[in-house]
Amino acid sequence: MTRMNVEIMYEEKPKLKDPIFIEGLPGVGNVGKLAAEHLLEEVGAKRFAVVFSKYFPPQVLVEDDGTIKLVRNELYYWKRDGGKGPDVILLVGDYQGLTPEGQYELADAIIELCADMGVKRIYTLGGFGVGKMVEEPRVLGAATTGELVEEMKESEVIFSRGEPGSGIVGASGLLLGLGHMKGIEAVCLMGETSGYFIDPSAARQLLIILSNLLDLKVDLSKLEEKADQIERITTKLQDIEKLEKEGGFEDLSYIG
Amino acid sequence: MTRMNVEIMYEEKPKLKDPIFIEGLPGVGNVGKLAAEHLLEEVGAKRFAVVFSKYFPPQVLVEDDGTIKLVRNELYYWKRDGGKGPDVILLVGDYQGLTPEGQYELADAIIELCADMGVKRIYTLGGFGVGKMVEEPRVLGAATTGELVEEMKESEVIFSRGEPGSGIVGASGLLLGLGHMKGIEAVCLMGETSGYFIDPSAARQLLIILSNLLDLKVDLSKLEEKADQIERITTKLQDIEKLEKEGGFEDLSYIG
Amino acid sequence: MTRMNVEIMYEEKPKLKDPIFIEGLPGVGNVGKLAAEHLLEEVGAKRFAVVFSKYFPPQVLVEDDGTIKLVRNELYYWKRDGGKGPDVILLVGDYQGLTPEGQYELADAIIELCADMGVKRIYTLGGFGVGKMVEEPRVLGAATTGELVEEMKESEVIFSRGEPGSGIVGASGLLLGLGHMKGIEAVCLMGETSGYFIDPSAARQLLIILSNLLDLKVDLSKLEEKADQIERITTKLQDIEKLEKEGGFEDLSYIG
Amino acid sequence: MTRMNVEIMYEEKPKLKDPIFIEGLPGVGNVGKLAAEHLLEEVGAKRFAVVFSKYFPPQVLVEDDGTIKLVRNELYYWKRDGGKGPDVILLVGDYQGLTPEGQYELADAIIELCADMGVKRIYTLGGFGVGKMVEEPRVLGAATTGELVEEMKESEVIFSRGEPGSGIVGASGLLLGLGHMKGIEAVCLMGETSGYFIDPSAARQLLIILSNLLDLKVDLSKLEEKADQIERITTKLQDIEKLEKEGGFEDLSYIG
Repeated sequence: MTRMNVEIMYEEKPKLKDPIFIEGLPGVGNVGKLAAEHLLEEVGAKRFAVVFSKYFPPQVLVEDDGTIKLVRNELYYWKRDGGKGPDVILLVGDYQGLTPEGQYELADAIIELCADMGVKRIYTLGGFGVGKMVEEPRVLGAATTGELVEEMKESEVIFSRGEPGSGIVGASGLLLGLGHMKGIEAVCLMGETSGYFIDPSAARQLLIILSNLLDLKVDLSKLEEKADQIERITTKLQDIEKLEKEGGFEDLSYIG
Repeated sequence: MTRMNVEIMYEEKPKLKDPIFIEGLPGVGNVGKLAAEHLLEEVGAKRFAVVFSKYFPPQVLVEDDGTIKLVRNELYYWKRDGGKGPDVILLVGDYQGLTPEGQYELADAIIELCADMGVKRIYTLGGFGVGKMVEEPRVLGAATTGELVEEMKESEVIFSRGEPGSGIVGASGLLLGLGHMKGIEAVCLMGETSGYFIDPSAARQLLIILSNLLDLKVDLSKLEEKADQIERITTKLQDIEKLEKEGGFEDLSYIG
Repeated sequence: MTRMNVEIMYEEKPKLKDPIFIEGLPGVGNVGKLAAEHLLEEVGAKRFAVVFSKYFPPQVLVEDDGTIKLVRNELYYWKRDGGKGPDVILLVGDYQGLTPEGQYELADAIIELCADMGVKRIYTLGGFGVGKMVEEPRVLGAATTGELVEEMKESEVIFSRGEPGSGIVGASGLLLGLGHMKGIEAVCLMGETSGYFIDPSAARQLLIILSNLLDLKVDLSKLEEKADQIERITTKLQDIEKLEKEGGFEDLSYIG
Repeated sequence: MTRMNVEIMYEEKPKLKDPIFIEGLPGVGNVGKLAAEHLLEEVGAKRFAVVFSKYFPPQVLVEDDGTIKLVRNELYYWKRDGGKGPDVILLVGDYQGLTPEGQYELADAIIELCADMGVKRIYTLGGFGVGKMVEEPRVLGAATTGELVEEMKESEVIFSRGEPGSGIVGASGLLLGLGHMKGIEAVCLMGETSGYFIDPSAARQLLIILSNLLDLKVDLSKLEEKADQIERITTKLQDIEKLEKEGGFEDLSYIG
């Protein structure tokens, strides 16, 4: 690393045609990260660049084989076979920037890369935390233009006045704001989630919508397995809570 | 956005004659913001520039139609008909800078704009929090020169020794300090407020003084409606409190 | 202000001969600030420069006459009559830098000024907080060289192993460290203080030592008045505390 | 100091042949610092550079003789007699950078120095905190390449999947991550420690492994003395805790 604030190190410079850019970094319920990483694995996308920054934590991760990995964001691409749809770029990673200034500089660097690579549209993937258990997660949207909002509504993305009331914080928001300033159209898709757990169930709903938008079939079985695991855990936790409320404290009185 | 810390993007470069600059950003009781935004709507000012900065939160707001807006400050102008008084520039926005350094850099950029546009006087609008309910809010002042202090006293602005004891923090203060260094005379007008609620009542008092200073008639009815709404809410809250103090705790004693 | 991080604005460029530089900024018990400001007033030093910085709070202070003052540090000089000793520069102010980086940059700018003005020695004035009431405050020292330590011992400055155990934080420390790197000899004089109150009594002790070092007579009566006031308040507080411990809680039992 | 963010001031520019670089800055249980400083003293390494930075605390330390020392990191070298092994560079100091950005910039500056001086391998020394008392501290490792992992395993460094689960934070991690990017192979050695105390016992285990790796004999008796002292203190504390658990609360019941 040089002493730059944000450094994108290219391993390859792929030539892509009018690519779609998809962001899935950590956030509420890790919904965006789960969805983007699942998509990445299912389509077999190829890494072409790594993003390092002094706005990430000063930390290396230790892999299972004992080797280290400096915390980072990674960029992947996926060339789709002739005519089936536009090529895809994916942004995934361990962290978002630690400070507001850092988040702006990171998003700025990514938007510059998008402009250089001729990106035609950005999808940012995130979670929409509602603070209570969600049976059937909706997928909410926000977009840079009114035309995009209409287009998304046709694909069953929900636009609900006052949701999210607090706006969209972090990369999923900034890439829309800064993208719009560079003339790149952009949509944020948010899977509804309690926000209490990582939420593969919300990620699954997100990917159903996104794969429709990309005219693409994605095997969701691995995400569904994870969702089932999380559901079993949360159901168990809810049962315990229920028990405690009904009679648990009386039962405990036998102990003493 | 380029990677500058503060960026002012012009939509138009209006030619104004000796304009008056008015700042009304969020602050104590949102008094300044309420007053400036009310004035802006009543006179039908026109936006000519938008301020973005990495010192604002990394956030987009979602409008009712589902489109997004990167958090920002905005600059408006209002050309007054021949001879009725000087033209006006208004600064409003969602946020002030998140850090002290950011606040300095933002205020510096605004003062530079003021110098470029030939601004002759700055009014910054704010709240003066007193930490208790206020029946008849005073409008307190502070200014860059003794002559200005005298001029303001003639317009019923109150200068009260030791108020505000802690000085003036944020844009409303810095624009005076930095403006003075550039030779621009500047006044801070502060509407007295509890600081517990947003306070349209203090904003109304502020606008009465300011419209006199600008030799201008402003319809205050919308602000007065808002003030009435807030008053109804706070009166209800005070009634509840009173009830609890008088008999509430005795009632509770029946439980145990 | 330009967009520099630290800006020293000169009102005059005095020519001084081998001047002594004295720093007295806010700190523990405001001992250094009290001492430096007292000295400044007694000798009638003249201001020649003002220091502004985005590392200070984004704040203006309001003077008694209603005019504002951007928070700042100020530099004064005092030319001593022929042969009675070296000229003196004094640094006083409202605040120190808010962040560690800011403190380094401010101290760096001051040391550069010292080098430019041919400063031969720096005295930094501070408090040494001991966390309990102090009957007869000692004046502790630290210095850039062993020779200076010896010289100070001759002037009744106390060097006590392990005091201060945590080192010296802020301008009083940095000006020694950074001064030493530029070849300027420097001493920190610390008045012992509880640290609970502003402490004119510790400041008085400090000035007795400092005026000896500068071969100078300073009228300390105003400081002594302030010290008496503070002593009366603290004695009263101690009496109340004592009362409460002896019988206060029993008295209160009559109420219930 | 100039106004650079990180400044390395050379006292000497030693010519070393394929040197090994060892980092031992403060961290968990101060294991790395204790080990590196012990090694430094035992081999009689010579200081050749000092690192100052505005990312360190704005503080000077006061030595026993009353002179001050600006907080810093220091670089030492040790030339080994003909053919007995590679020369060694040691990095020790009072502090690591206070902010994440500062840590990146400091590590970046050190890696640049390593590249300039032809460093062939880096060992970073740290503690691995387990949050409970440790009888026989293991020495865990992480490395930049799989070959290095294998080499370390042969020297009884333990690589344990999932340990440390949270990665390696600070200089001990960053020097691996940034070193790897510059093509310098690097290993982090972590002495297992409770993390509750400074831990000379973990430092001793670390040095046994490290001296084997460097083909070097180090007298560990001083470290062992310190370890014994700490052990006596912690044993006493555990005895007190045990007593309280067994009978302490019963004794207290007599009071009520």
